[in-house]
Amino acid sequence: MAVVTDRYVDYRLSLSLVGTVVKYLAAAPLFPVLVAIYYGESVLPFVATSAVMVAVGVGLEQLSEESDLGHREAFLLVSLSWLVIPILGTIPYLVAGNGSVGAHTIDGVVNALFESMSGFTTTGSTVMQSISFETHSHALLMWRQLSQWLGGMGILVLMVAILPELSVGGAQIMNEEAPGISIEKLTPRIQETARALWKIYVGFTVLAALVYFGLDVVGLADNMGVYNAVAHALTTMPTGGFSPEGRSVEAFSPAVQWAIIPFMVVAGTNFALFWYALDGRIDRLTENAEFRSYLGLMAGVTAVIAALLFTGLGVASAAPNIAPIPGNLENSLRQAAFQVAAIVTTTGYASMDFNHWHPVAQTVLLFAFFLGGSAGSAAGSIKIVRWVLVRKAMARSLFTSIHPDAVEPVRVGDEAVDEGTLRDVFVFIMIFLSLFVVSTVLLYVDSLFIERMDLTGLEAMSVAMATLGNIGPGFGEVGPMNSFELFSAPAKLYMVFLMWIGRLEILSVLVILTPAYWRS
Amino acid sequence: MAVVTDRYVDYRLSLSLVGTVVKYLAAAPLFPVLVAIYYGESVLPFVATSAVMVAVGVGLEQLSEESDLGHREAFLLVSLSWLVIPILGTIPYLVAGNGSVGAHTIDGVVNALFESMSGFTTTGSTVMQSISFETHSHALLMWRQLSQWLGGMGILVLMVAILPELSVGGAQIMNEEAPGISIEKLTPRIQETARALWKIYVGFTVLAALVYFGLDVVGLADNMGVYNAVAHALTTMPTGGFSPEGRSVEAFSPAVQWAIIPFMVVAGTNFALFWYALDGRIDRLTENAEFRSYLGLMAGVTAVIAALLFTGLGVASAAPNIAPIPGNLENSLRQAAFQVAAIVTTTGYASMDFNHWHPVAQTVLLFAFFLGGSAGSAAGSIKIVRWVLVRKAMARSLFTSIHPDAVEPVRVGDEAVDEGTLRDVFVFIMIFLSLFVVSTVLLYVDSLFIERMDLTGLEAMSVAMATLGNIGPGFGEVGPMNSFELFSAPAKLYMVFLMWIGRLEILSVLVILTPAYWRS
Ligand SMILES: [K+]
Ligand SMILES: [K+]
Repeated sequence: MAVVTDRYVDYRLSLSLVGTVVKYLAAAPLFPVLVAIYYGESVLPFVATSAVMVAVGVGLEQLSEESDLGHREAFLLVSLSWLVIPILGTIPYLVAGNGSVGAHTIDGVVNALFESMSGFTTTGSTVMQSISFETHSHALLMWRQLSQWLGGMGILVLMVAILPELSVGGAQIMNEEAPGISIEKLTPRIQETARALWKIYVGFTVLAALVYFGLDVVGLADNMGVYNAVAHALTTMPTGGFSPEGRSVEAFSPAVQWAIIPFMVVAGTNFALFWYALDGRIDRLTENAEFRSYLGLMAGVTAVIAALLFTGLGVASAAPNIAPIPGNLENSLRQAAFQVAAIVTTTGYASMDFNHWHPVAQTVLLFAFFLGGSAGSAAGSIKIVRWVLVRKAMARSLFTSIHPDAVEPVRVGDEAVDEGTLRDVFVFIMIFLSLFVVSTVLLYVDSLFIERMDLTGLEAMSVAMATLGNIGPGFGEVGPMNSFELFSAPAKLYMVFLMWIGRLEILSVLVILTPAYWRS
Repeated sequence: MAVVTDRYVDYRLSLSLVGTVVKYLAAAPLFPVLVAIYYGESVLPFVATSAVMVAVGVGLEQLSEESDLGHREAFLLVSLSWLVIPILGTIPYLVAGNGSVGAHTIDGVVNALFESMSGFTTTGSTVMQSISFETHSHALLMWRQLSQWLGGMGILVLMVAILPELSVGGAQIMNEEAPGISIEKLTPRIQETARALWKIYVGFTVLAALVYFGLDVVGLADNMGVYNAVAHALTTMPTGGFSPEGRSVEAFSPAVQWAIIPFMVVAGTNFALFWYALDGRIDRLTENAEFRSYLGLMAGVTAVIAALLFTGLGVASAAPNIAPIPGNLENSLRQAAFQVAAIVTTTGYASMDFNHWHPVAQTVLLFAFFLGGSAGSAAGSIKIVRWVLVRKAMARSLFTSIHPDAVEPVRVGDEAVDEGTLRDVFVFIMIFLSLFVVSTVLLYVDSLFIERMDLTGLEAMSVAMATLGNIGPGFGEVGPMNSFELFSAPAKLYMVFLMWIGRLEILSVLVILTPAYWRS
């Protein structure tokens, strides 16, 4: 048994708690087992995964009997969870070759790790070259979708219960709207908050599946059977974006595309606000500053892109498979609203291949990559609340330039924002942008040495943001119908790192990389 | 006479003080008059400019007899000075067609305003299509160079004496190293500080001219006559970058290029540190945190680019006019050191056309666009001291994540940095980067409608930074040997705005654009 001291990080305790999480997660592969049985596919990849998870989970649990989680051990727990689980999540991809479909569906450990990390971080970038039931079993694709749903649940707990306690990147601000549980110990708090979020998350997932499947039943969708309805519900709510269809949501009718939009918007909203709404306090939702900015920004960007598409200025070439867009108001509005919601909420679905958009429209969309959904959701990227705070801090700086003696706190709603929180928000954005710039350059330089790739600057930026912001697709060679498989192995490992660090709000990972963390 | 009240901005007072500055500046065109007489060129453009300046200056002075400059009037004074003077500075370009050379050298008011603003803001971007004494008189080109030298002197006074008092964008931090004059009133402070800076600035300008001309005398330069030596001294010290040679500093020998590098480095250093050094306190220079980062960053980026050039990885095509670079250590080092110093100090000279560099080397150089020289110099862009503070604030955020109860101020040297200053630095960088992004998109979109232009994303970014950061040249179609003339008139006016707002540290302009500034 490890002895807890004030002087060293009790990494055995952190690992032991990761073990507990892994042990419970061993139940998850049973869902693809059921799918495999239904479709007559091999259950081996998932039974094997479940068995390994039990073994690893129970094994790690033995490392410590301590249960009093300290501040620093919590950081380690967070970072290690999103490393150990995605690694275990590679097993189905690596074993699936023994299934009914035949060949290994993903070649090599690096690709499997990329796909698994992309799943559990709800990123949605893929290294699969062709996505269909001819090359992949129903069960394997369901595991891929399930990994996003599980990752999303984990992120919600992280965002609403854990990170605010750890003061990461101004995450305290997200806490202001969290259910008002103020118990000192971290663990009971997590359990209670998790239970509330779990209900809302499951509820919306079920509702989404019913609506999607309902459209098929009433004749408004051709191919939205039970499998597809469940698959897309599982990847909408975590803002994940994986689809069992190679052409993403383009494969479905306009009615389905319209129906997915509000569910993406819900998925990118602060879940604590739904908690209040269900409690009768709907004004907490409708009067929330971040929620209003979130809707307003999406509406604004949608209007600009819809206008560009409708007039034809935003269209570079006619897209195959879909109706012509210029001059078609419904189509222009739908593509714009869908794509903007998909990017702002960081879901990453595509209702069409936006590689056919004109660079002007693509550039406007690239803006949206930096917005991010709301705090307290599974959305990635920078997040609206941080931009709201930056805008208010800017206004205050201008005001105090004119009135040097004025001492005004920045306010969100009626609440004065703590100056330390504000500082952490600025630091977060600066680190995020620095990482974006450095990653763009590194991935661009790497692509120069790959014969079949010819990335432009815009495309390189989109690759960095697609992974760091947990969005999924980018432009050009990594567009929504393309694959990240072409990148070099080191580049893919680097993107695995970006998805990981981006998902954990950057600072919770950076903290454990500082020498000071491990000292005194 | 205007009545000073607490309720309204006394814009008449600000205009009257602008008038005083313009009145004294009326002496400046006498220098190109002397040049014109020596070369037998027309003196009319400069006599006319001087006459108009006297008239406008004396006229504006009548608007107010008040002399007690308030906080808000100072903001207006700063913004208006860099608007009124560049407008008056267009006169020589517009009148020069009547001179010895024949045709109007710059076509139209927009182009003249661009060139004049580029001069007085020490930017160095040009709309001239061919720069030579065959198309422009010696006197007109000397006016162009002189405008940078005058603008640089103005900026030094602004940076060291005025902006710190106005708390703009964290400019207080620049004040910590400023000569220790602590008089309440702004005016005497400006006068005394200005006098100290003036001596250093003039001293270095004379020294640069002597060294440049000396290289010609001892046979190390072919074409560095008195005119060229003075011309380049006048545009080195203000980090300006205008050259009477169409191919910039490529036109001179390696010895001249090596000699210009240290003068650019000096021009980008905090002038207050020289004030101490001359006073015997050389440690204030050598131990200054910003100065050390400034040298370190330049050395680091130089090493990377020199390695890329020497190995050939950084070279896309052989450059005409100069010796081959790959495998030539002296040439690789010289081109790298010169170009990095030119960009980091925001001087913008070119020792070669870096359009022949590989995109990898260009991308590294684009990084340097965002560094900027030191506070308390005439350099533009973001400036090293701000990055030093951001890096330290990031480190502190990581530290307090681990030790939540630690209250640690950010320190530069022995001094704790005020939290308000730190906040202003973050706000400044966020506004700067937002303006950079928006401008990149606007200028890129504009270029799509110009038939002869085909900007890439990298080039569009470089255009925005070249003007907003007061650097001068960009990549591709706005490379160091090219011209900004191709852009549309609205784009050029927008760039005039960028040079203006970038030069004045953004916030001093934004402040006067807020409604709150004009109220109560
Ligand atoms: K996603
Ligand atoms: K310059």
